[in-house]
Amino acid sequence: MATLCRPAVSVPEHVITMEDTLRIARTLHPDHPQLPLALRLIENTGVARRHLVRPIEETLEHPGFEVRNARYEAEAKARVPQVVREALAHAELRAADIDMIVYVSCTGFMMPSLTAWLINTMDFQGHTRQLPIAQLGCAAGGAAINRAHDFCAAYPDANVLIVACEFCSLCYQPTDLGVGSLLSNGLFGDAVAATVVRGSGGTGISLERNGSHLVPDTTDWISYSVRDTGFHFLLDKRVPTTMEPLAPALRAMAAEHEWDAGDLDFYIIHAGGPRILDDLSRFLHVPAEAFRFSRATLTEYGNIASAVVLDAIRRLFDEGGAADGARGIVAGFGPGITAEMSLGRWSSPPPGTRRRVIAATVRGSGTDPDIAPEPVA
Amino acid sequence: MATLCRPAVSVPEHVITMEDTLRIARTLHPDHPQLPLALRLIENTGVARRHLVRPIEETLEHPGFEVRNARYEAEAKARVPQVVREALAHAELRAADIDMIVYVSCTGFMMPSLTAWLINTMDFQGHTRQLPIAQLGCAAGGAAINRAHDFCAAYPDANVLIVACEFCSLCYQPTDLGVGSLLSNGLFGDAVAATVVRGSGGTGISLERNGSHLVPDTTDWISYSVRDTGFHFLLDKRVPTTMEPLAPALRAMAAEHEWDAGDLDFYIIHAGGPRILDDLSRFLHVPAEAFRFSRATLTEYGNIASAVVLDAIRRLFDEGGAADGARGIVAGFGPGITAEMSLGRWSSPPPGTRRRVIAATVRGSGTDPDIAPEPVA
Repeated sequence: MATLCRPAVSVPEHVITMEDTLRIARTLHPDHPQLPLALRLIENTGVARRHLVRPIEETLEHPGFEVRNARYEAEAKARVPQVVREALAHAELRAADIDMIVYVSCTGFMMPSLTAWLINTMDFQGHTRQLPIAQLGCAAGGAAINRAHDFCAAYPDANVLIVACEFCSLCYQPTDLGVGSLLSNGLFGDAVAATVVRGSGGTGISLERNGSHLVPDTTDWISYSVRDTGFHFLLDKRVPTTMEPLAPALRAMAAEHEWDAGDLDFYIIHAGGPRILDDLSRFLHVPAEAFRFSRATLTEYGNIASAVVLDAIRRLFDEGGAADGARGIVAGFGPGITAEMSLGRWSSPPPGTRRRVIAATVRGSGTDPDIAPEPVA
Repeated sequence: MATLCRPAVSVPEHVITMEDTLRIARTLHPDHPQLPLALRLIENTGVARRHLVRPIEETLEHPGFEVRNARYEAEAKARVPQVVREALAHAELRAADIDMIVYVSCTGFMMPSLTAWLINTMDFQGHTRQLPIAQLGCAAGGAAINRAHDFCAAYPDANVLIVACEFCSLCYQPTDLGVGSLLSNGLFGDAVAATVVRGSGGTGISLERNGSHLVPDTTDWISYSVRDTGFHFLLDKRVPTTMEPLAPALRAMAAEHEWDAGDLDFYIIHAGGPRILDDLSRFLHVPAEAFRFSRATLTEYGNIASAVVLDAIRRLFDEGGAADGARGIVAGFGPGITAEMSLGRWSSPPPGTRRRVIAATVRGSGTDPDIAPEPVA
């Protein structure tokens, strides 16, 4: 049974508050005819602060796609290894125990992807599968979990490392002046996150079923326009209405599993914006409180794209997890419009297992201090 | 058992011969100090002709990344549906029978990826999984086969559509004047290809084992430099030597499967260039003739990136396939440097199965003429 272990999340050191964002918007666009609307939309996001890889003055410049992308690569190499190490430690595994790395990121482009660099520099084995995904946007966190789940279903002894690296601030486009762009400039934040899906053992969300759903004929609602200046993010005003068609998709997948999507023990929902969370809780008839992990991510970090679901899961862990067997759903939403959904139960090792593992590790520690604890089978 | 069915391959209508290529190189770079070397390298590729999505005059212009990428999208939408329809027909399936679409392409970038457009326009179901891969370059054809195999291992009743869309000519960079670039300008071609991996039934390569191998510390041997002018392909002169570390990786994977990589019945090898094919046949001690499918792809189409392995498999089918149970290997090579390898046996339905299916279809045809023949179980 594939188990998603405690994620590691890191946000950069440069902080921008809601007040900063509003002030900058007023300063940059004093004569914009829709400035009041944009400011109201930004205020409504509830995003209190965001974290950026570069200082705000530098973020607001556009030095060209080449420089931006080089910055993406440098920042990724500087920030990803630490969350990978933490995620491996949380899963009680070494890099050498990983069979596949799923790397999701839509805010920069590298070929070879960062997977090759990670394998070369962090003691992963040469036969580690590489699955870089750049084109699923905010849904990619859910997609990564689902493909990791599938891989462990195919190879029950396998372990999959998931890395989400999103530096949305490096896609800021000063010449994009639509209301959707102004809102996006106040909504998205930067973060890196990692987690391990263990084929056996581990404490976390034991993955039982996953599914995908494409909302028909909405490909232009969330998209990139690819230009000489890089990726231009286009956000249609209809996007906040997407929970109406997506709530039934969540319900349907849960029903196939003989679960009621409106009666689960925990909810990990993509915090694309406040309306998405408000609407989905209403359509599923669950209290807003059920989405507290996603809401906290949105408030404290902003929309961190594919990293949202991993950060929300991290917050579930921080709260102490759930009762053994508690049922939950993970849902990422992104371009397509696509939902990547997963159902699972909270799972912790049987009482006593942990103690045995620690004892075994202590016994073995004299021979090879670098070996991490054995998998909790 | 996952079976890779007959691929469909299509090359564009604009043809450029080796003679054209040499003439253009002489015309564009008369004073290039290494022109004679570049011409010799191009002649050595053995690429007789290539197919381009646009006429050569237009191909040689660089109208900017935005225009190039818009052209990519338009050409993909114009050319992909036909190979998808053919691949589905070869697999005797309908679009609605497909559970996942793996779309591999490194020569343009779209978000949402073409998977969403295909689902919307070609009667795929809304719950079809989307797996777009843009960063594995020429290895992505092998990776697509391997991830499709894994998916069918996890869900034995599933069917996976693979699409490879490579318009290498849209990455031509007139300002790149290194010998590696001049060689690449004479080596790469355009093509689209598709195939279906059926979880059960079907005629083709029954996939038994797959693996990946990264050659350490070679990330800069094959790479994209991402610039304001788009993707700049960088090819290091050490690349042709990579079969020395990769041949043992192929041998090792075959040995794990208790097969001898030097004694298989068919070989589908990425035709990156002639040296790769020459060296690998030498290192594996197999006659050059064993690589005839890949060699034909290289001669007639050039290096068509991730589509090479699908086209070489198509040529195996055109030759009549292999004896039932014949053992073979598929190997894609690309940036990383990464090898994506797969072992399988030729498999055709038991005698008489096909006739029963046709009879069943004829019996059912009065009720729903749109339904394709039942899977050949």
